Amino acid sequence: MSQVLPGVLTLTTDFGCRDHYVGAMKGVVASLAPGVQVFDITHDVPSFDIAEGAFAIAQAWRSYPDGTVHVVVVDPGVGSSRAPIAAAAGQHFFVAPDNGVLSQVLESVGTSSIRRVETRHGLRAISRTFHGRDLFAPVAARLAAGLKFEDVGPSMAEPVRLPPVAVAAGIGAVLHVDRFGNIVTSFRPEDLTDGAGLTIGGRVVGSRADSYADAPEGEPFLILGSSGFLEISLNRGSAAASLRVQAGAHVALARLRSGEGV
Amino acid sequence: MSQVLPGVLTLTTDFGCRDHYVGAMKGVVASLAPGVQVFDITHDVPSFDIAEGAFAIAQAWRSYPDGTVHVVVVDPGVGSSRAPIAAAAGQHFFVAPDNGVLSQVLESVGTSSIRRVETRHGLRAISRTFHGRDLFAPVAARLAAGLKFEDVGPSMAEPVRLPPVAVAAGIGAVLHVDRFGNIVTSFRPEDLTDGAGLTIGGRVVGSRADSYADAPEGEPFLILGSSGFLEISLNRGSAAASLRVQAGAHVALARLRSGEGV
Amino acid sequence: MSQVLPGVLTLTTDFGCRDHYVGAMKGVVASLAPGVQVFDITHDVPSFDIAEGAFAIAQAWRSYPDGTVHVVVVDPGVGSSRAPIAAAAGQHFFVAPDNGVLSQVLESVGTSSIRRVETRHGLRAISRTFHGRDLFAPVAARLAAGLKFEDVGPSMAEPVRLPPVAVAAGIGAVLHVDRFGNIVTSFRPEDLTDGAGLTIGGRVVGSRADSYADAPEGEPFLILGSSGFLEISLNRGSAAASLRVQAGAHVALARLRSGEGV
Repeated sequence: MSQVLPGVLTLTTDFGCRDHYVGAMKGVVASLAPGVQVFDITHDVPSFDIAEGAFAIAQAWRSYPDGTVHVVVVDPGVGSSRAPIAAAAGQHFFVAPDNGVLSQVLESVGTSSIRRVETRHGLRAISRTFHGRDLFAPVAARLAAGLKFEDVGPSMAEPVRLPPVAVAAGIGAVLHVDRFGNIVTSFRPEDLTDGAGLTIGGRVVGSRADSYADAPEGEPFLILGSSGFLEISLNRGSAAASLRVQAGAHVALARLRSGEGV
Repeated sequence: MSQVLPGVLTLTTDFGCRDHYVGAMKGVVASLAPGVQVFDITHDVPSFDIAEGAFAIAQAWRSYPDGTVHVVVVDPGVGSSRAPIAAAAGQHFFVAPDNGVLSQVLESVGTSSIRRVETRHGLRAISRTFHGRDLFAPVAARLAAGLKFEDVGPSMAEPVRLPPVAVAAGIGAVLHVDRFGNIVTSFRPEDLTDGAGLTIGGRVVGSRADSYADAPEGEPFLILGSSGFLEISLNRGSAAASLRVQAGAHVALARLRSGEGV
Repeated sequence: MSQVLPGVLTLTTDFGCRDHYVGAMKGVVASLAPGVQVFDITHDVPSFDIAEGAFAIAQAWRSYPDGTVHVVVVDPGVGSSRAPIAAAAGQHFFVAPDNGVLSQVLESVGTSSIRRVETRHGLRAISRTFHGRDLFAPVAARLAAGLKFEDVGPSMAEPVRLPPVAVAAGIGAVLHVDRFGNIVTSFRPEDLTDGAGLTIGGRVVGSRADSYADAPEGEPFLILGSSGFLEISLNRGSAAASLRVQAGAHVALARLRSGEGV
């Protein structure tokens, strides 16, 4: 795994953009890894929502070049005994608290190597409330600037994992609701056999469309989303608002009566 | 039109910053055009609002250096038959869906050259729902990294255009309401002869100020805005909230009674 | 004070991210200082709130490398007679309107040098409403690209200062409420002797925690925040919502009855 300098580093957090927190993290990167490019995935992960953070980084990291260092900080346990970890996976590096926020990334790659981050890679003074600035950004910056992954800290066996987001016995979940109100489900196209639809919010959605604009306005439909999951959408409207659905809601396979769906 | 490397690339979308979408687009740019600088114009164009997207990029692009590549994605027709286009205009490049979102930019330059983007410049797999990541970002990155504009795809005659935002017969419109509640109208200073004001929301605004701080608090006034249009503002308050006006509202020339205005 | 090119430049404003304003400022920087890295501290300073802008930049600037140029624009007086200033302080540079928005930065460094920015360093045409784009970004870009601080304009004696945010006679204030609802007070740990707590919103907060996760849910507690101030927090909740407190609220020292606090 080699890196061409200047490196690339991304940030995914629940810090929002109102406060100075993200700006401070970028300053640390600019100080420790001059010239490294810093990109935001999102800072609007709902506060403390580890599953949503896991989803966001899992959707975005593959778009970046090999060698990119991804910092992921959704960290309700900051300052407690939860470990800071680094992962090498799929030719990329990840730095995060050991609370499951890397679950979906690690699920999606064959093998990965995990290390516990030693605090000597952090700033000289590490606060108890802002490891994003004091520990995660510094070690990520050092990785982007050439620190060897093996030198981050000792190997760890298995990091904390969230329950896998999969479909079992015809039951799945809403992984995410996006800005447009598109409902990202955990169903893949191959989970639906001919004539099957999805039940969500007490309603069966069976019709399909190949693009948003192909669908009649006002009727929710299934579409293959950009993440590879089936989504439930509404042409020029919010499917989530229409169906009153939020992330985490249950979604179930539904056999359509003849005549339903497309 | 020559470019000094590293190039500059901007993004204007209605994707918001909550989701991973913009982060994924930046990853594609970082992968295909290493070192190119990426700047956000805004990602908070109201969903599907092509006119607002057209306004945002038209206001910002001239601040960038020659050779900059601007990606503009407000794209309710993604995945349908609407064409992806690229434009060379005013020593800059633009990549966008052919739905009118470049109208104001193209209106403001003498001549421009339009090409239909060939999908071979996109990612290997192009989804039906996220051309920002799969097609527009890749072709823009390739342009920023040296792809010749002529190689983007075949010439096109005339792209889709929105109706021009101008003043006719004394009637104009609200182009935009900004964060502060400033109302950007389509009137230019020269549209108002001596003693004329503007009627908006059932009220005549006739007084003028040279700066926000010069105006008495509580009274809406006309001011020459930073875009060259007349704006209706309120010192330390929101003119739009006070007058209950939104983008798209009508604005009309008003002859002031003697004693009104300044 | 020497700078290694490419330089680093930060932006702190109350412009929000909905409009094209910040994107236009970045274009000016990209035009006048090619290759300089631009980082956002925040653009969500509440509109016209000079004290909140002063707080944001004061918290973030030290994370950046020496030589960084910080642009701070919270500027209700734009276009009036208030001066544009530049400051050299603590091996960093600052460009801002002379309205007190640099108060906390200047308070925190031993000595600083202030100059009045000459408008010849701005764009050729300087609007009356957008000095962020037309004057502050240009002079900051020129500083980042090598303009000598002495050449910015004539020396100034004393810039406008906000009243210092300190604790006097046991009375302090809420400096900021962050995204999570943490209440940043102006109290330092050494302001509280043994057995003392803080009164805020009619309630005494006396218990302390070393990390968020250490505290019982539902009970506000004192914690040493990442800025060096005492904060009032709630484990996985918003202390500010719970206590109905906003920035600017009063906070007072409280002697705890025996048995209160930890």
